[in-house]
Amino acid sequence: MATISFARGVPAPECLPVEELADCARAAIERGGPAVLSYGPAAGYAPLREWIGERHGVPAERIVLTNGSLQGFVFLAEQLARGKRVLVEAPTYDRPLKILKRVGAEVAALPMDEEGLDPDGLERALRDGSPPAFLYTIPAFQNPSGRTLPVERRRRVLELAREHEVLVLEDDPYGLVSFEGEPPPTLHSLAGGEGVVHSSSFSKTIAPGVRVGWFVLPRDLAEELEAAAVSTYISPPFLTQATVLEFLRRGNFEPNLERVRTLLRARRDAMLGALERELGSSARWSRPRGGYFVWLDLPPELNTRDLLARAEAAGVTFVKGEDFFPEGAGGASAARLAFSFVSPEEIEEGVSRLAGAVAEAADAAGVVVGASSPA
Amino acid sequence: MATISFARGVPAPECLPVEELADCARAAIERGGPAVLSYGPAAGYAPLREWIGERHGVPAERIVLTNGSLQGFVFLAEQLARGKRVLVEAPTYDRPLKILKRVGAEVAALPMDEEGLDPDGLERALRDGSPPAFLYTIPAFQNPSGRTLPVERRRRVLELAREHEVLVLEDDPYGLVSFEGEPPPTLHSLAGGEGVVHSSSFSKTIAPGVRVGWFVLPRDLAEELEAAAVSTYISPPFLTQATVLEFLRRGNFEPNLERVRTLLRARRDAMLGALERELGSSARWSRPRGGYFVWLDLPPELNTRDLLARAEAAGVTFVKGEDFFPEGAGGASAARLAFSFVSPEEIEEGVSRLAGAVAEAADAAGVVVGASSPA
Repeated sequence: MATISFARGVPAPECLPVEELADCARAAIERGGPAVLSYGPAAGYAPLREWIGERHGVPAERIVLTNGSLQGFVFLAEQLARGKRVLVEAPTYDRPLKILKRVGAEVAALPMDEEGLDPDGLERALRDGSPPAFLYTIPAFQNPSGRTLPVERRRRVLELAREHEVLVLEDDPYGLVSFEGEPPPTLHSLAGGEGVVHSSSFSKTIAPGVRVGWFVLPRDLAEELEAAAVSTYISPPFLTQATVLEFLRRGNFEPNLERVRTLLRARRDAMLGALERELGSSARWSRPRGGYFVWLDLPPELNTRDLLARAEAAGVTFVKGEDFFPEGAGGASAARLAFSFVSPEEIEEGVSRLAGAVAEAADAAGVVVGASSPA
Repeated sequence: MATISFARGVPAPECLPVEELADCARAAIERGGPAVLSYGPAAGYAPLREWIGERHGVPAERIVLTNGSLQGFVFLAEQLARGKRVLVEAPTYDRPLKILKRVGAEVAALPMDEEGLDPDGLERALRDGSPPAFLYTIPAFQNPSGRTLPVERRRRVLELAREHEVLVLEDDPYGLVSFEGEPPPTLHSLAGGEGVVHSSSFSKTIAPGVRVGWFVLPRDLAEELEAAAVSTYISPPFLTQATVLEFLRRGNFEPNLERVRTLLRARRDAMLGALERELGSSARWSRPRGGYFVWLDLPPELNTRDLLARAEAAGVTFVKGEDFFPEGAGGASAARLAFSFVSPEEIEEGVSRLAGAVAEAADAAGVVVGASSPA
């Protein structure tokens, strides 16, 4: 029995436009020539910076391309967060938490509800603690919760950030992967491009293997990031950046994105349906309108660290909730379920296995999960 | 008058196999499929790690591919050198010096002569100071000096390293770019693969724009580097690594390398000839048997920081020697001249302009350069 992975927050192979990219890679070198194959600007392939700059309504000098957006987060954390306080959503993407720990940042976890970051919690954190280096937020189809911040909250967050002069770092890899119309405008656009660093990547809209992330930054910070990039890898691989540009130039981006949305929407629907059927009386979960993830909350008597072993024995895996909180700060009864990598059929089967493991764990804990109102 | 650059230590466009790489990029995706376009092992594309491992006679698990070899140096420095003593050649490649400074290493500069690192100097440094984290050396066609460590010295360096239990980091990007037969065996092979971390890249033998460097490491250090890579960029761009592998599989590597050697040999010859003609009585310089660089030593009365401004006004540029030493430790009258980026004709003209600037600077300093015996 092959394990079904709800752990892998990565696109399924069928999401990747393999043939088109093969053709674009060749064309990118033929069009770009030696410039694509040599050293060059550490901030990235100039024509792609221009393309992205235009899309965000900023000059190309404010765009820095990195080897995936995590690399840029490392540069920003090293530049801004060493020994400083940083505000994050709880739960949040686990890799930035590890990077912030590595640079010695003091991470303050902000409360969320079904609508994402709670602005009142943000206000308290801004009022009570020392001034933070930045607020790190994933406002659309958040990793790991799948939640999306509504536009009124976005305005409130920006007002608070302005009032307290706090930089906002908006990580937005999933925003375009929406299943039900357009997501709310980005924090960056709502703020008129000021006071918000916006990052995204082509990992979810084209392919992660190209490793092309981007940052929209104030000019001085763009220069600092570029300097960090020079001292780390001289220049990024222009071949992959030029391949992405070729894909964009050919008009492949929108049709491919529509295809990816359709694929992922069916998976999200399969997961929500299966959860309702299998765990409807014993758990609650987020209902994402895009992205890759569902956040599952089990009754507090059940610990997902223990559950994970049972689930793996039953042939299904996930990431336990506590990995997405600063140490010990929460998530003990929660789990992140990724629906991106597995087929609708696997999702049905995987949720059924998971429900079996939950029933077992509940038995062992002496909890009658079906009867109790979900947490 | 276009400036002639002896500063750019990069391959000329005509060194790059553009057409072949365009074809390889397409074939790499067609052959590798979704694996080339998704996330994967942070240590790099498995089939390329295998290819490189075989070449070095080590299992693939001991190979880590990085975004150019500098990225791997950053990981190693962060892992091993924080606040520690590190031994380097003086002069040496400037970027590692900056990275070592950034991680707070105490850099000890070892003396060199025309045959590279002086083993007696190494012995003194090992005997007298605190135990170093590692010795960083570029033994073949060194950047910036162009010097190559003979095999007897290599054995002596390895003996000393073994005796004092010091790790050797052998940076070898230029070894294969030899103009006069094979260079001496690498430190890594002389040491039987033990006690030496070997790094190289395809930047000088295929193209820098692919950003594929590699490290041959002890197993535990390979795991540490892979962990650092995961936490920095999740995985590297497999598209470029698979493109390189396709180039290798097709048997393009050796013929391309022979072409590059021929191109660069003509440039080296042009530079040595022009130096003899223009500066024969007033300076001395290294006579590299491979690589990209000639090291120029002017009489001590002439400062190359001042000379650089005169040279640039005359339409030629270089990198001043002091950039390749730990702060204030030397190189005030030296310069690195790269012959890789410019044509033989430009080299002739550039050295002629440089000689004019040297004559001017000598006049200003009241030195009769032609008459004095060179420093």
